[in-house]
Amino acid sequence: MGEQAFEELLSLFSDDIIFVLNGHEKQGIENWKLFMKMVFKENADIKHMFEGWKAVEDTDMFETPWAVCGKRATGSVFTQTGKDIANLDKNGKITYLENVPDNTNMFDSYKK
Amino acid sequence: MGEQAFEELLSLFSDDIIFVLNGHEKQGIENWKLFMKMVFKENADIKHMFEGWKAVEDTDMFETPWAVCGKRATGSVFTQTGKDIANLDKNGKITYLENVPDNTNMFDSYKK
Repeated sequence: MGEQAFEELLSLFSDDIIFVLNGHEKQGIENWKLFMKMVFKENADIKHMFEGWKAVEDTDMFETPWAVCGKRATGSVFTQTGKDIANLDKNGKITYLENVPDNTNMFDSYKK
Repeated sequence: MGEQAFEELLSLFSDDIIFVLNGHEKQGIENWKLFMKMVFKENADIKHMFEGWKAVEDTDMFETPWAVCGKRATGSVFTQTGKDIANLDKNGKITYLENVPDNTNMFDSYKK
């Protein structure tokens, strides 16, 4: 991923973002950058698809199922599915993002 | 997928290709085209990654694990993993391709 594409991706998120990966909460755009850089470093290729944000009834949250396939830097391939839960600020930036993988072994290397 | 990309993809396969999808054998490039067109029609987006062909000991076959993620035309997302087993002719074209999904419900709509 190029520098410009990375900046464009980053611009989707609030500086104050709170993110939850498989139950583990972290805060701030710098931690989010570290996480994204780890994902791109660990994977030679990765593709993320999602169904689209839908409002979660009686809350101000949005939710979408997602599917990922990837090829690790080591050469092995994998898939993962799950759902994202998000909250947006008035400017449409993501202030809260909870990633709930169906397989709870995901992100083990980041938790440590 | 554009017409040129489709022709480039097709050029990987022999006119006499035998292909096996989840245990069901079909033959010939025209049937292979029909299968590929069905895959692209059923999916708004699809990404295929593979580890790389490796010779299968004591045979003339090659084998690789693969991982797919896709978004169906209906909007739902999915993943699938499995292995491909292939044989190549002297020109390097695929004459035999066996797709063995880990989830054997795959290709149900094509078998019928």
